[in-house]
Parts: sequence; structure tokens; C-alpha cells
Amino acid sequence: MEIVVIGIGAGDPEQLTLQAVAALNRVDVFFVLDKGDVKQELVDLRTEILQRHATGKEYQVVIGRDPERDRSTAAYVEAVDDWRRRRADVCAELIAANLGADQVGAFLVWGDPSLYDSTLAILDDILDRGDLSFEIEVIPGISSVSTLAARHRIPLNQVGRPVQITTGRRLAKKWPEGVDDVVVMLDARTSFTAHLDQDATIYWGAYLGTPDELLIAGPVREVAAEIEKVRAEARERKGWIMDTYLLRRQ
Amino acid sequence: MEIVVIGIGAGDPEQLTLQAVAALNRVDVFFVLDKGDVKQELVDLRTEILQRHATGKEYQVVIGRDPERDRSTAAYVEAVDDWRRRRADVCAELIAANLGADQVGAFLVWGDPSLYDSTLAILDDILDRGDLSFEIEVIPGISSVSTLAARHRIPLNQVGRPVQITTGRRLAKKWPEGVDDVVVMLDARTSFTAHLDQDATIYWGAYLGTPDELLIAGPVREVAAEIEKVRAEARERKGWIMDTYLLRRQ
Repeated sequence: MEIVVIGIGAGDPEQLTLQAVAALNRVDVFFVLDKGDVKQELVDLRTEILQRHATGKEYQVVIGRDPERDRSTAAYVEAVDDWRRRRADVCAELIAANLGADQVGAFLVWGDPSLYDSTLAILDDILDRGDLSFEIEVIPGISSVSTLAARHRIPLNQVGRPVQITTGRRLAKKWPEGVDDVVVMLDARTSFTAHLDQDATIYWGAYLGTPDELLIAGPVREVAAEIEKVRAEARERKGWIMDTYLLRRQ
Repeated sequence: MEIVVIGIGAGDPEQLTLQAVAALNRVDVFFVLDKGDVKQELVDLRTEILQRHATGKEYQVVIGRDPERDRSTAAYVEAVDDWRRRRADVCAELIAANLGADQVGAFLVWGDPSLYDSTLAILDDILDRGDLSFEIEVIPGISSVSTLAARHRIPLNQVGRPVQITTGRRLAKKWPEGVDDVVVMLDARTSFTAHLDQDATIYWGAYLGTPDELLIAGPVREVAAEIEKVRAEARERKGWIMDTYLLRRQ
């Protein structure tokens, strides 16, 4: 058994690499966890990617029910760990029931599997249990972070300087120490508004790489209100939002 | 005039995105700064990428002489700034002499143009001078950092935790504050050896994505000597090395 974890880019099907296209065409079974929420657009986009690019052989798409994460608790890491274990239960069952010994299974990951994605941890968790055995191959993808920088035509780092990638939850608490360039992912609460006292520029983007892409850049204290407004409107209109941003102090 | 900055991946031509392939085929003039050093392999690999993928139209490759960087000074940022200005001089001349008003020029960038690459800064510098005017488009690429994580089959971050991308020069001075996951690029001096007191795992890779790829992982204090040895031998054998690594504290 082999499982390929394929990064499929931030939302533009043209961001697939040649390597990812080749991998898609080796796959017998694609495993999908269905969140059962309103991101039907993402499901459609993934379907479009398969229809357009996985043309080399017959394949099967197996859909499992993504367990709910407990968002009521303050114990973030524990809640995510618990969620991951329950997702591993679902995935292990799907793999055992659907993937033959000489077959190739795949998980498609938006962006790059290396950044804030749990697929690799889930697969490691399944392997650790010892009931299933498979090889893992990872195909890197273009992350939303790379796409953000490309669309704003900026590097992520200043000359010889570090850049930190962090979560909205952390940025809300404080500006990270020792860095002037901070990339934020998974920010459900516009945490940049906690830093309007900073002499910083924000480069913000949502739905990156898709026809709905939104980009705003400027001094954070001048454009924060605009971003909040545009973000709330887009979220209301589409029912979901995926956004990321770079905060840069000179 | 239009200039496309195209990320071409870490070294495997199959890491090109479909978007990058399409962009290659719109280009009239590829601009290359020749470092005049021994990285002939990289020049050959770039030539191979063009021959294999830029088949849609006639194109020209224009080669300029990359100015030397002053490596004798301790003033790193100033030396890099000065180097960038002199590279901008060379590039501005190449563009003015070779790119027609309705043509598309391109710079190919290893990895992703958003990480520790000066092409965008050089182009901004040229535009600021006001003598030339062009549109810039950036095509993101798979970075060596994404490739490192994929090859080791790991995420860059721990659950809900930040990751910092920094330089060897900085890591040599101290472990960055507030992070347990540190990705190091541009390390000419195996700066991880300054942190053998840490209870950390290193995931190291060189020539990522190429047939010469080297991967070593393990507790940093146990594998540091091996990495130093393998790295020195490879560098001696090939005449150059490009490596990157993640240091992870639990």
C-alpha cells in the first residue's frame, strides 16, 4: 500500500505542479473527508482538478465524514489532538475498507502539506497503531503564503531578516519576539487589529488564486477597517473565507 | 513591457507548476545573471527546463555578468544593498537593450521568489529610478523549504505553533525567541552546531529535488557530526552545495 499526500495549490488549478499531475494519475483511490459545511465551492474545485488532470486511469473517490472539532474548549492543542485522533479513526477505516494491498491511495491538500495541515499527523497516527502499513509520499504544493507574496509582488523576508509564520490566535496575544515580518494563517478573528499601534504594513489576501481573490495592502492602521469590512462582506456573501496576511515592520 | 518572475522549484524540473509552464511560453527574452562560478549544473538544469517546457514560441536568452558581492565586510545588510544596486544596474541595462515595448521578459528563480531572493527587490529598484517602466507578474514556485518538509514527510509547524524561517548567520548567534521550530536557509557554516545543547531534532537536506539529494534526520547532537561530514564531502565533490534544514524542539 502507498498513500500519496498531494499539495494542490492555494485554489488555482494551474498551481498544480507537473509532479502533482503525474501523482494524480497513479492514484487508485482518493480519500476525502467531507466537512459537511458550506464550502461546496472547494469540493467542486477539487472535483474539477480531478476531472481535468487525473485522466490517466480509473479512480475511485471515497468520502468519509469529518468529525466535529470541539471549539468550545480553551484547551486548543488538546482539542486539536483529540480531533486528529478521531479523524485518524475515520481515515484508518476508509483505507482498510477501500485500498488494496498493491494500490495507491491519495489525500489532496489545499496549499502545501507542510503548513498547518493535519494530514501527515493523521497518517503517522494510523501507522503508529500498527494495524495498517503503507508507504507515504508527499508532493509539495504552492501554499497560500507563497501565493500571497506573489500576488502582492513582494518577498516575505527583508534582507537577511527572519520571517515568522504563526496563527491568528497567537498574534492576537502579542507581536512575536525578534521578528519584524509575521505571516498569519488560520486567523478567524482579524487579529491584526490588535496591532494598530505598530508602524507596520499589512499585505492581506483572501480566496488566493481563485476568481474571487481579494487583495488589500497598506499601513495597517489605515487599512485595517477596510479589510474588516471587505472580509465580513465576502464571508457573508460566500458563506466562508480563507485569508492570510503578512505584517511587516520596517 | 512586462517582466515575469517565475519560481521554477527547488531543483526538480517536475516541480514546475502548470502556471509556470504557461508563463515560460509567453516569454520573449529570458534574463540570466551569470555568477561565473562553478554552478554549471544549475545553468544546465535551467537550460533543460527551457528546452523541455518553453516550446511554444521563439525566445532569446540574454546573459549578464553578476557583480561580485563584498564578502569581506561585517556590514551584511549594507553589502547586500550595494550588491543589489549593482545587480540592478546590470539588469536595467540588459532590459533596456533587449526588451521591446510590447515584449515579455522573464527572470527564472530557483525555489520561490518570495524567500531570500533578490529579484523582486532588483526590479523595484529599477522601477524606482524611473528610466524604465514595466508591469511585474510573479509566479510562485515550490521552495526548498516545502521540498525539505515533503522529503522528510513532516509538517514545518507543530499544532497551533509558529515556525520561523531565518538565516544561518542569525541562528549562529542565538536560537530565536518564542519558537521551537526554526527553518534555516543560506547557511554557509553549519550553524546548527551552535545548538548541540538543545533537545532538538534536525531535518536536513541538500540538493533537494535533484538526483544528488541528501537527507539526514535525527537528534541534532547525535547527527550533527554526520551532517558536517556528508556536507563537506558533497561540497568538495560537486564544488557547491545548497542545503536547508528544520530544527525542532518538542
